[in-house]
Amino acid sequence: MPLKLSIYCLVTSRGRTEPTNCWKKNCFANLRIYPHGLVLVDLQSYNDQTKGKEETDRLLDKVEERMKELFHGNIKRVKRLPAILRGGAIDRYWPTADGRLVEYDIDEVVYDEDSPFQNIKILHSKQFGNILILSGDVNLAESDLAYTQAIMGSGKENYAGKEVLILGGGDGGILYEIVKLKPKMVTMVEIDQMVIDGCKKYMRKTCGDVLDNLKGECYQVLIEDCIPVLKRYAKEGRMFDYVINDLTAVPISTSPEEDSTWEFLRLILDLSMKVLKQDGKYFTQGNCINLTDALTLYEEQLSRLYCPVEFSKEIVCVPSYMELWVFYTIWKK
Amino acid sequence: MPLKLSIYCLVTSRGRTEPTNCWKKNCFANLRIYPHGLVLVDLQSYNDQTKGKEETDRLLDKVEERMKELFHGNIKRVKRLPAILRGGAIDRYWPTADGRLVEYDIDEVVYDEDSPFQNIKILHSKQFGNILILSGDVNLAESDLAYTQAIMGSGKENYAGKEVLILGGGDGGILYEIVKLKPKMVTMVEIDQMVIDGCKKYMRKTCGDVLDNLKGECYQVLIEDCIPVLKRYAKEGRMFDYVINDLTAVPISTSPEEDSTWEFLRLILDLSMKVLKQDGKYFTQGNCINLTDALTLYEEQLSRLYCPVEFSKEIVCVPSYMELWVFYTIWKK
Repeated sequence: MPLKLSIYCLVTSRGRTEPTNCWKKNCFANLRIYPHGLVLVDLQSYNDQTKGKEETDRLLDKVEERMKELFHGNIKRVKRLPAILRGGAIDRYWPTADGRLVEYDIDEVVYDEDSPFQNIKILHSKQFGNILILSGDVNLAESDLAYTQAIMGSGKENYAGKEVLILGGGDGGILYEIVKLKPKMVTMVEIDQMVIDGCKKYMRKTCGDVLDNLKGECYQVLIEDCIPVLKRYAKEGRMFDYVINDLTAVPISTSPEEDSTWEFLRLILDLSMKVLKQDGKYFTQGNCINLTDALTLYEEQLSRLYCPVEFSKEIVCVPSYMELWVFYTIWKK
Repeated sequence: MPLKLSIYCLVTSRGRTEPTNCWKKNCFANLRIYPHGLVLVDLQSYNDQTKGKEETDRLLDKVEERMKELFHGNIKRVKRLPAILRGGAIDRYWPTADGRLVEYDIDEVVYDEDSPFQNIKILHSKQFGNILILSGDVNLAESDLAYTQAIMGSGKENYAGKEVLILGGGDGGILYEIVKLKPKMVTMVEIDQMVIDGCKKYMRKTCGDVLDNLKGECYQVLIEDCIPVLKRYAKEGRMFDYVINDLTAVPISTSPEEDSTWEFLRLILDLSMKVLKQDGKYFTQGNCINLTDALTLYEEQLSRLYCPVEFSKEIVCVPSYMELWVFYTIWKK
């Protein structure tokens, strides 16, 4: 960022937002002064932002200094925000479920493919390791054992010798952790082979070697839609000690046109209860703790199942989510 | 946001950034098209953003639709970021230690005062509870028991009957948790009475009632600079089983002119080692895991103390930090 040009632009263009000379250098500076005393300065440059960071900071120091002179030190608050990087090969912005802007320390696109079901990205974060992002939603990072532990009942369950059904779970995290606990049999039903392909290659801290084969001594992975599988099991009378729904977060929308989503959710819950032993447990994620309306609506669905159930919930900090997450345990009355 | 005006502005002003008609309504739309195919649309409105959110979304839907038509569906990537709110009474942006932009769910300014030492803010976050922010740095939220537990040795220590010295710790979290464990005596040395005043009123989930009095059965709080206190204790030969440094994070800057900060840090470490029993432990926070240079420099300081020490570190997820944090345990060889 050419320092002189930018200052010129800022100091002379008050209120005008057309940057004349700067255009050639792909730099913009917008200065807006609002009547009640708010002054906004936006700088935009088209180049390697890390290279220009120091220059930008020096420029903003000068603007701040000059403003303080002009207003005789009568400035209540000054705030400088980190630059937003747009249009690069790496996208660092993956808003939270409750719609807040958060920047991740992404430094590499590891995997980016469209499957018949969704867009699958695996991005590398310096602190969280590889992160699986499905259709724009942060699903799980290699740092997120807390998620897997929470959706398995937070270490309070004994999986040894048990029959377990996992719905979804394509990252392999739940399967990997349960297999360690010597269950009788774990069946995982994941619709998207490409999620498994990506994760077994790039999320090994999460799934270990458990996805290398779709069959092991005490587990099998079915690449299928879970609905017909659940229907089949219900018909056959097959029962499980644990059903773990790792399909999707509770829908955020609460509008009537989204009714089908809730119906779908209730269908899965009903079918799951049908294949759950009387003393079995059903685990699932809810959503961000701030989405209270969506969570309430989910809890209302629980009172509309074919059989009476009770539930408890737990709030967990999943490192890569940058928001607190609600997990549910549901059991038959 | 007046929908029609904004669209007019967007569709007709390509490359020009002077919003004519919109000015009156305090709305701006900037559209920039870069030669290699990047199109940036910035919308800015001066009003209650939550009110305008749906209108803005509809407007952007239309822009997106029209762009797709114009480019015959030949658009590789579309990304919409949440609006940034600036200049309001509530500031939701508190960048991480490694300089990333993160938006908090702040909905209330609970406390905002300047002490002789720093600016003290306590802001309410919907999910994290009240957050203590000292001179712009997120210090601790009511959700952050994980921080307190980590800086106390992650539950692996036995504090019963022990002598403990806390440096800083004005939020009262460490004091509150240790007092529960029946120590012989805890001495906390906090320089800023106003931090204590704010926290005892607004961070009660963190400090309980422990700050209501500066003296209890097994603890005392000294409102003093810790350096002279440490010097006094060292001279008197007073020794502690645990010294917990909760003063500040490891300095981020690694430039030579910041040498005095490192010297200050080494002085505290040296003095702390002088009052630490031979089999005692010193706990402190490091910094964000991504600041590897700063952490390495800190570890180098540890080899320059008056006595040989060893250390271990632990990486912890502190909910309100939105980044992984490093904690150190240091002991005499």
